[in-house]
Amino acid sequence: MSSPLSLPPVMAPVLTPFARDLSTDVERFVRLCRWLIGAGVALAVFGTTSEANSLATAEKLDLLDALAAAGIPGDRIVPGTGCCAFPDTVALTRAALAHGCAGVLMLPPFYYKNVSDDGLFASYAEVIERVGDARLRIYLYHIPPVAQVPLGVPLIERLLLRYPSTIAGIKDSGGDFAFTERLIRTFAPRGFAVYAGSETFLLPTLAAGGAGCISATANVNPAAMLSLARDWRASDAAARQEALDAVRQAFQKFPLVPALKAALARGTGDDGWRATRPPLVRLDDAARATLFAALPAGFLPPSIRPRRRGFSSAPRSARR
Amino acid sequence: MSSPLSLPPVMAPVLTPFARDLSTDVERFVRLCRWLIGAGVALAVFGTTSEANSLATAEKLDLLDALAAAGIPGDRIVPGTGCCAFPDTVALTRAALAHGCAGVLMLPPFYYKNVSDDGLFASYAEVIERVGDARLRIYLYHIPPVAQVPLGVPLIERLLLRYPSTIAGIKDSGGDFAFTERLIRTFAPRGFAVYAGSETFLLPTLAAGGAGCISATANVNPAAMLSLARDWRASDAAARQEALDAVRQAFQKFPLVPALKAALARGTGDDGWRATRPPLVRLDDAARATLFAALPAGFLPPSIRPRRRGFSSAPRSARR
Repeated sequence: MSSPLSLPPVMAPVLTPFARDLSTDVERFVRLCRWLIGAGVALAVFGTTSEANSLATAEKLDLLDALAAAGIPGDRIVPGTGCCAFPDTVALTRAALAHGCAGVLMLPPFYYKNVSDDGLFASYAEVIERVGDARLRIYLYHIPPVAQVPLGVPLIERLLLRYPSTIAGIKDSGGDFAFTERLIRTFAPRGFAVYAGSETFLLPTLAAGGAGCISATANVNPAAMLSLARDWRASDAAARQEALDAVRQAFQKFPLVPALKAALARGTGDDGWRATRPPLVRLDDAARATLFAALPAGFLPPSIRPRRRGFSSAPRSARR
Repeated sequence: MSSPLSLPPVMAPVLTPFARDLSTDVERFVRLCRWLIGAGVALAVFGTTSEANSLATAEKLDLLDALAAAGIPGDRIVPGTGCCAFPDTVALTRAALAHGCAGVLMLPPFYYKNVSDDGLFASYAEVIERVGDARLRIYLYHIPPVAQVPLGVPLIERLLLRYPSTIAGIKDSGGDFAFTERLIRTFAPRGFAVYAGSETFLLPTLAAGGAGCISATANVNPAAMLSLARDWRASDAAARQEALDAVRQAFQKFPLVPALKAALARGTGDDGWRATRPPLVRLDDAARATLFAALPAGFLPPSIRPRRRGFSSAPRSARR
C-alpha cells in the first residue's frame, strides 16, 4: 500500500447501485467509479454512503474483484473493511491488500455500545495481527452519530504506539471540528492523515494541517471539492467553500444516501440509481422536487454528466 | 415452525465459546446447549449475549448444523438471524427453517440510526418475502440500548397487519416495563408473545399476560427462572423473583457477557469459557473475585454443574 501522500485530498464513499431485485449492480458501479477516478478523487468504496453494512461480505469481495477486472488501479481505492465480526474484517482487508489498495477505512465493531478502549484496541489489533502484512495502511473511521462507537485520542495514541506504520490516519465524521483540530494537532506531526468526514470542514481541515475530506457529496460534486482542496490557499478559497456548502446544505435536508442517489439518477438520466436497500428508503417525488429546486442553479448537469467517457445508461434518446 | 405456545417460557441466549485462536468451539457449544435443554429452557442461540454479531454468517450456519448433528431438536431452538445486510438475514433464516427451528429472533438492521418506520417495515418485509415460507415465525428483537434502533408500536401494528401468522412475538430488552406492558396489552390478545429481555421483569411480565423471558442470565440460572415462570401464581413467587434478582444484580455490576462467561468457567471448571471476541474483553482476576463474592452463597456449583450428562471439559482430576 502506498503512503497517504500519494492519495488525492478528496475521496468519495462511492454510492452502491442496486438492480431491481436489489442485487448489487456491478456495471453501474464500475461506471461511477470510472467517472469519479476521471474527476481526480479516490474511491472510498464500502463506506456509510455506500450502504456497505447492507451488503454481505461476499458481495463486497465481488465488487472489489470487479474494480480490479475493470482495470481501476488499486492505489486509487481505499475500501471500507470494518465489520462487526473480525472474520469479515480480515477477509475484506486481505482482499484489499491482494488488489493493491492504497489503504482501508476501518469502522470499529459497532454492535456493542460503551465498549472499553481495551476492547477497541483488541478489535483493531486482532485484525492487524491476523492480516499480518507490513503493507497494510489503516484509516480509522470515527462516526459516532451512526456507529455510536466513538474512537478517542487515548485509543489512537495506543494504536499508533503499537502499530506506527499501519495506522495511517482517520476519517472524522463526528461533526465536531474542535475534535478534528485536536486530532490534527496531536497526530498530524507524526504523518497521521486526518480527513474531515464532510466537505463542510474542508478548508479549515486543510488550513489546520489535515489531509482533506472523505465526503458523501463527493459522489456528485467531486471536481469542485478537489479544486478547492488543491488550491485552498487561493484568494477565492472561502467563496469556493461557500459554494460547496450550498450544495451540501441542499442534500442535508434529506436522508443523505437516498438524496444523493436521486441526484445521480437525475444527473445521469438513469432512474435505476434511485434504489436503496432497506432500511434506507428512496426519496419520493415530492422530496426529489424539493431537493432539485434547492440545489444551486445548473448544479446537476455539469457536475454529474461526464464529458468524455460514457456514464449514463439511459437510452440514447434521453441524452442530449 | 411450531406455535409460540409450544416453547417454554424461558429461553437462554446461549453463550458462544471460543477456542484459544478465537474460532468458535463447537464441542463446548453443544455441551452447553444440551445442559440448557436438560434444564428445560429453549435455546435463543445467536443473541446479544451470544456475541452473535461478532460471528461471521458462515460460522453461525456451522453452529446451527452442529446442533442438528448433535440431535438437539429444532423445536427448542430460536436462533437470532437479524443482520445489517438482508442477504445474511435471509441465509440464516432459511437455515433455521431447514433445521425445523421453532422461530427466529430478528434484530432490525442496526447500522443506520433514526431510520423511518417505512425503512424498518421494508427490512422485515424484504426478508419475509425472500424466505417465502408459511412456517416462518419471527420474534422481533427490540433492544434500543445496544442496537440503538427501537421498534415501536405503529411498526409492529403494521407488520402484524401484513404478516399476521409470521410475526409471532417480541423480545423486549428496552428495560422499560411500561413499554412491555403496553406491548402485552396491545398485541397479546392477538396471540403475540411478549418476552421480557431480563428476568428482572419475569413475574410482572407473566402477570400482565406476557410469554416469559429471554435473558442472558438464563445461561447460568435456567432452572430457577423456569421454575418461577411455570409457577408464577404460587404464594412464594415474589420471594423467588427476589432470588432471581439477587443473582442478576451481581452479574449486572460487570459487563454482562464476560461476567457470565467467567461464571460458566468457574461453574464448569473449564477456564476456556472465559474467552470473548473483541470488542468484549474477559473479566480480569479482581473483577472475577468481586463477582464471585457478590453471588448468593452456593449459587455457582448447583446451578451450573450438570447432574447427569457430562458437562465440564476440565480434566477429571479437577472435578469432584
